[in-house]
Amino acid sequence: MQPRDLSSHVEYEAGRGIEEVARELGRDPEEFVKLASNENPHGPSPAAVEAIREFADEVHYYPKALHADLVAAIADRWHVADEQVWLANGGDGALDYLARATLEPGDGVLVPTPGFAYYGMSARFHHGEVAEYDLLASEEPLEFSFDAETVLDAYDGERIVYLTSPHNPTGHRFTLSDVETVAEETDEETLVVVDEAYGEFTEAPSARQLLDERDDVAVLRTFSKVYGLAGLRLGYALVPEEWANAYARVNTPFAASAIACKAGLAAIDDEEHVEKTVGTADWAREYMREEIDAPVHPSHGNFVLVEVGDAETVAEALKERGVIVRDCGSFGLPQCIRITCGTEQETYRAVEELNEVLAE
Amino acid sequence: MQPRDLSSHVEYEAGRGIEEVARELGRDPEEFVKLASNENPHGPSPAAVEAIREFADEVHYYPKALHADLVAAIADRWHVADEQVWLANGGDGALDYLARATLEPGDGVLVPTPGFAYYGMSARFHHGEVAEYDLLASEEPLEFSFDAETVLDAYDGERIVYLTSPHNPTGHRFTLSDVETVAEETDEETLVVVDEAYGEFTEAPSARQLLDERDDVAVLRTFSKVYGLAGLRLGYALVPEEWANAYARVNTPFAASAIACKAGLAAIDDEEHVEKTVGTADWAREYMREEIDAPVHPSHGNFVLVEVGDAETVAEALKERGVIVRDCGSFGLPQCIRITCGTEQETYRAVEELNEVLAE
Repeated sequence: MQPRDLSSHVEYEAGRGIEEVARELGRDPEEFVKLASNENPHGPSPAAVEAIREFADEVHYYPKALHADLVAAIADRWHVADEQVWLANGGDGALDYLARATLEPGDGVLVPTPGFAYYGMSARFHHGEVAEYDLLASEEPLEFSFDAETVLDAYDGERIVYLTSPHNPTGHRFTLSDVETVAEETDEETLVVVDEAYGEFTEAPSARQLLDERDDVAVLRTFSKVYGLAGLRLGYALVPEEWANAYARVNTPFAASAIACKAGLAAIDDEEHVEKTVGTADWAREYMREEIDAPVHPSHGNFVLVEVGDAETVAEALKERGVIVRDCGSFGLPQCIRITCGTEQETYRAVEELNEVLAE
Repeated sequence: MQPRDLSSHVEYEAGRGIEEVARELGRDPEEFVKLASNENPHGPSPAAVEAIREFADEVHYYPKALHADLVAAIADRWHVADEQVWLANGGDGALDYLARATLEPGDGVLVPTPGFAYYGMSARFHHGEVAEYDLLASEEPLEFSFDAETVLDAYDGERIVYLTSPHNPTGHRFTLSDVETVAEETDEETLVVVDEAYGEFTEAPSARQLLDERDDVAVLRTFSKVYGLAGLRLGYALVPEEWANAYARVNTPFAASAIACKAGLAAIDDEEHVEKTVGTADWAREYMREEIDAPVHPSHGNFVLVEVGDAETVAEALKERGVIVRDCGSFGLPQCIRITCGTEQETYRAVEELNEVLAE
């Protein structure tokens, strides 16, 4: 026997770690900086690190009881009821819960291109059909359109519409008014999922504001970026009141680990680390825009999109020089690389090496 | 808008932690022992605890690169190819991957009753239909039947058949020959999933033995029990060669956390902790069978099923006395409690309190 026909399913292409790259090139991991996966250059919240160490000898207990404490802290932060917080193992876990609560087999979803591959994967996992809206407005010069019209022009009654704001990998965002227009103009039975994984890096307001008035918007947040907990897998969706009770029927009961809950609880109160992280990203974005000898798109995330001509060649040359960045070919942007905002030292080095590669 | 009709989905009823119970009763958590969730009474593997502490400040990196190291160690242990190890966030995650690789909407699955609720939940999450086979042979006296015939009598062309061996909550098991008969007698397109979450506590051989000859058996294992990592969420399926390539198309790319991978890698080599844990379970099972003044079923797991008459009343009385056990009413066995094998001290206390309650 064989698995069922999975040919419509795609494989996720993950960024590679320093260890892997160093192993492949037969070099010392210490020589490399990784600015490829939008990870936090300051590491995890120190308060979270302490919480992990303290809790390490209690991981033989199932995590369920800890979920409640973290959910209460998140609900408090966003001024929603506990039941409106759908805790999950990473933002990807929350995407699964939303797809599960929404899609009957054959229902459509509308995803951005370029965009995060997991929206479509998660929908297909639940027997949904995937359609795309194109964010590319012009290839030469490279321009993107982030407005309600772009989404609505492609919309054809899908049950879920995914918006990424700030958007990965372009760094652009939708205004709150555009999000509201998309929700308003799509069918009553269409859920708009606003992925705000990079929400802390922009001053734009969260789509959380729409939840009190609307029953067709959900907001996705993660502990992977600003809190520096990507390796722990912790994220959540904020859902309208009407959705609260469905959680118990769609969630994987133990998905968020005990260590992740303890670390998340510490990180959410570690304002110093958040401020430092956001400050570094603000600085690095501006520095890269000013100093890189190639077009750099304005960004609301902790990364920038850079037009380098042939991304594969440039990313390879940078890797040889010890700087790992993301070749955006897999996003359908073979002319671009994405560089994560590093520490000052990492950013100086990345810009210097990139400019040398571009001058070659 | 509302979530879709989820009325066929059930909510998972999790065991409660010491903190929760103590809070409810307004008492000190120190007064309680928890023998309700088959957790490891010796705690996590000490090697794993050390690995967690060492790695705590690197959790800002995505975990993907670490998966490969752990997968290689697991493959080595079982003498299978790396691609036959489907790593997941807990055994429940692996159940999702197997359902995803197998079920088209409307396909049936066959689950044991009494049994682990997540088999059916996972199938429903993927639009499968759930049928049950009844393990209860007789209610008075309470007897269970664990043989191929019991399963095959209920079988009606379902695409997945779940066998739990050793079985939770009864402690019984299927022989390897019965597993093979079920695989042989069901359709070619039916996958038999053998859940061996408690596999280390029995001397019976693993269904891993069938994988070289058969393409319709998968084995489920977890780090939650013998390794004491329940809070970290780490498990895996061993699949036939024919299934290896499907993993990339059904898995949640980052599901197993970095900390879980590091801890798992340390725990899998910590033979001392495994031996100590298995030794304690062996002793506690025998002690409880001999000393409890009520029928105790023979068990191959790290727990025993005890017939106490009215489980709800007995479990409540034990809780008042500081001993938390599992009332098996939610498993459809309202006459039974399940007691996890604790340390010597915990087991003495549980037996003493239980016998006093039974004598009342």
